[in-house]
Amino acid sequence: MAQVLYDFSAEPGNNELSIREGETVTVLDQTVGGGWVQVQNAVGQNGLVPEGYLQVGIGGGASVSDTPDGRDRLGAVEDDDDWDDDWDDQSEAGYHGNDQVDGEGGASGQGTQGPSVKISLNKFPFSKGPSPEVFLLAKPPANSRDRLPVYVGEVGPVWFYPSSPLDCVIADPKKESKLYGLKSFIEYQVTASTTNRPVNHRYKHFDWLYERLLEKFGSALPIPSLPDKQVTGRFDDDFIRRRMERLQAWMSRMCRHPVVSQSDVFQLFLTYRDEREWKAGKRKAEKDETVGPMIFSLIEPEAAELDPTEVEQRCEHYSRFTKSMDDVVRELLNVGTTHWKRCTGPLPKEYERIGRAFTNLSTVFISSKYPGEETLTDALTAAGKTYEEIALIVAEQPQKDLLFLLETNSEYKGLLGCFPEIITVHKSAVDKVKDVDRLISSGKINTSDKKLLNQRISHMSYSLQAEMNHFHSNRIYDYNRVMRLYLEQQVTFYQQIADKLRAALSQFTTL
Amino acid sequence: MAQVLYDFSAEPGNNELSIREGETVTVLDQTVGGGWVQVQNAVGQNGLVPEGYLQVGIGGGASVSDTPDGRDRLGAVEDDDDWDDDWDDQSEAGYHGNDQVDGEGGASGQGTQGPSVKISLNKFPFSKGPSPEVFLLAKPPANSRDRLPVYVGEVGPVWFYPSSPLDCVIADPKKESKLYGLKSFIEYQVTASTTNRPVNHRYKHFDWLYERLLEKFGSALPIPSLPDKQVTGRFDDDFIRRRMERLQAWMSRMCRHPVVSQSDVFQLFLTYRDEREWKAGKRKAEKDETVGPMIFSLIEPEAAELDPTEVEQRCEHYSRFTKSMDDVVRELLNVGTTHWKRCTGPLPKEYERIGRAFTNLSTVFISSKYPGEETLTDALTAAGKTYEEIALIVAEQPQKDLLFLLETNSEYKGLLGCFPEIITVHKSAVDKVKDVDRLISSGKINTSDKKLLNQRISHMSYSLQAEMNHFHSNRIYDYNRVMRLYLEQQVTFYQQIADKLRAALSQFTTL
Repeated sequence: MAQVLYDFSAEPGNNELSIREGETVTVLDQTVGGGWVQVQNAVGQNGLVPEGYLQVGIGGGASVSDTPDGRDRLGAVEDDDDWDDDWDDQSEAGYHGNDQVDGEGGASGQGTQGPSVKISLNKFPFSKGPSPEVFLLAKPPANSRDRLPVYVGEVGPVWFYPSSPLDCVIADPKKESKLYGLKSFIEYQVTASTTNRPVNHRYKHFDWLYERLLEKFGSALPIPSLPDKQVTGRFDDDFIRRRMERLQAWMSRMCRHPVVSQSDVFQLFLTYRDEREWKAGKRKAEKDETVGPMIFSLIEPEAAELDPTEVEQRCEHYSRFTKSMDDVVRELLNVGTTHWKRCTGPLPKEYERIGRAFTNLSTVFISSKYPGEETLTDALTAAGKTYEEIALIVAEQPQKDLLFLLETNSEYKGLLGCFPEIITVHKSAVDKVKDVDRLISSGKINTSDKKLLNQRISHMSYSLQAEMNHFHSNRIYDYNRVMRLYLEQQVTFYQQIADKLRAALSQFTTL
Repeated sequence: MAQVLYDFSAEPGNNELSIREGETVTVLDQTVGGGWVQVQNAVGQNGLVPEGYLQVGIGGGASVSDTPDGRDRLGAVEDDDDWDDDWDDQSEAGYHGNDQVDGEGGASGQGTQGPSVKISLNKFPFSKGPSPEVFLLAKPPANSRDRLPVYVGEVGPVWFYPSSPLDCVIADPKKESKLYGLKSFIEYQVTASTTNRPVNHRYKHFDWLYERLLEKFGSALPIPSLPDKQVTGRFDDDFIRRRMERLQAWMSRMCRHPVVSQSDVFQLFLTYRDEREWKAGKRKAEKDETVGPMIFSLIEPEAAELDPTEVEQRCEHYSRFTKSMDDVVRELLNVGTTHWKRCTGPLPKEYERIGRAFTNLSTVFISSKYPGEETLTDALTAAGKTYEEIALIVAEQPQKDLLFLLETNSEYKGLLGCFPEIITVHKSAVDKVKDVDRLISSGKINTSDKKLLNQRISHMSYSLQAEMNHFHSNRIYDYNRVMRLYLEQQVTFYQQIADKLRAALSQFTTL
């Protein structure tokens, strides 16, 4: 027996069963896989439901997804069976609201399309990495190919940028089936600019990539969350298109990052040649030990070592900057979402009503049978039609300008949301270094370790500076671009209305 | 003792006393005049309050204004003492909501300036005129100067239009005092185009004129209500200006009416040369007996007599038309008022927030200290300023376009509100004529009366047709004019915003 925790609407023709919060169902099969379980409801109907929606053993504290069958099972499985699951790792995470996603929901209008399950995997990856003391003293790995050089450019420390930047195109989403048509999923074609050869990936694969990148680089670089997962409406055309656009934006941002784009795991994802290569690369990536704060052991700055006090000051400055920018971005998202609702809701309704009132006035005037008022009634009819057209233009406008402004700011909210953790890693390192003399006297480290420690924190600071400079140059590019696009569309919008009204005006008699 | 029926806020420096609904006061002097009484409140403060706000004798059913001292007293007084009262006939009417005035309140924003007393004197004036039977058989008056000819023009029956149309200008409102400065009032200069000589009138005088016109012509012509009276804020500059504009609109409409503008009482109001002439004319007008349905005895059509069935059909057609137009005008007022609120309330606030968000983004970007982003931050600051300017433009726009659309439709609502009574007079006459054979057989009228009756109803129909044709030609002129003005201002509005945004856009770097 299990209790239903959340409403779930079955996707038609997909062997699913609709369930409602509070309902009690009998679990028939927990081994279906992919986060699905087979249940029977009180009236005897059978079907699949997401296991995360159930709490097995009424009154008990653990949901299905909290059992050892959840995340740990997936982590432990070495073969790729789970790879084909249609369920987008539903079982791996808890259910909770995510205000970033809410902001996006407002922008895209998806927010009203039914319950969407918001999953955050953006956990600080210290759990898998070593403790701060260990990474501060860790030796750089032998393989020099992995080293992350930091150069000094015009703007200060910078990453190594490849001569030809990577990009990719996500296209052609196709509905595929497995388990003899029992379950369906969407497969995207991803084509890297370097190979021009498409590889297939499901949302689940992007999510795997996100987890690997977060684990490996999350202490040093912002790895923003993927577009939100959604349980219902997954096969809705609008949803598929919107998700693809957001995956594209996410992938393009990762491609633009010199460290991420050149990493083995990212290259594997974009350029694997066959299933064998993919599976081997996947296993290797999952076994990678240079993850979490260990990434800093790869940093190789060409510039002089920094004083820990300077490191601390830079860290403080970036912390203030990212916090301030986060506040503004949130404010823009808030006002943008409010404005979106007004522009698609009451405002066009008013223009429509104004238009209809003019049209009705024309109809009544015609009914007067008073001779010679055709010019006025024709003009009134045209004015009415114009305002009804304006209503449509107003309602569709946010899709043309506000959407891009909101999407860009949502992306930046995601990026900025990663910085507090990056800055925390730096601060905890700064604190360790401050404490270095006590560590020496208590015999935990020796004096030569102190030298390594100061060098390592300097490397961390170069890494942060290179990343901030990367962030700034992208920010300038992105905001210049989004503001141009927004204003261009706004100019077109107002100009179009002015022109339409001018045409309507010309029909009235000049006095 | 008297109970306070409504809150009243004293005008400062005017010897008035603020009172609150439900409060009990002692009436000290009911002979102050002009609708004012002197009262003392529970804490011993003395002052003047409008008598209509009090109910004398707690628990009794009659308010001060319902006593014989109210309207009847004013009607009976032959000298012009009441003429100098500063109180705009407050005591003559009951208090009730008036949805026309509500619409206007929304348009002008006066609705939120405190309680405004809405007074309707638009009673059907049968009370003063004779019964339908009498007026249908009444002989035309001897004075042929008063006759109202109806000609047949291109559009059908029309009034006699003077060769040079009358107009007047209301200007220069001045605050005047009387009773040795105890009470204040506003005096307007009214200058007729025919004399070019200003005469002084107070709102109270306009109200007197309105009552005379309503009494004399209300059965045949729409005499719309004056702009609403208001107890508080009477000396507020905005209120004085708005009231003057509406009095101007009302007077201009009356001037445009060939029957009203040529009447003795209207000419007296515009052209009296001295106090003596004014008082004599005023007394004469108040004694005029050709009022109410008696007005139809003055009609002299040049065309052939109409069949009562045709009269009935025309009457039905006008009834349907005016009803339909009234519905549309109300819808326009409703949507206009809603739109006004949005355009002056949440919409500019959103533009302001968008503008501030861009400005804040610029400020944060400047704080990054990243080199070479001045072009972006300058452009963002300019974009922010532009949206703050747009907020102001949006908030001020309704005063430039919607106001005139709403004012014109309010005027038409007032005009259309008069037609049901005009049509009722015609219908009751049609009913009498249908009953004519029974009236003959019962000896109430004779067969020669039947001829007169048919003639009289034909005259009434010519009057109604002439009036509808006057209404239609004014309607076409007014709606063409208001639509032109509205659309011109709307074009300017959207064009101005498009141009501003284009300038803001030009500051961003082309990619």
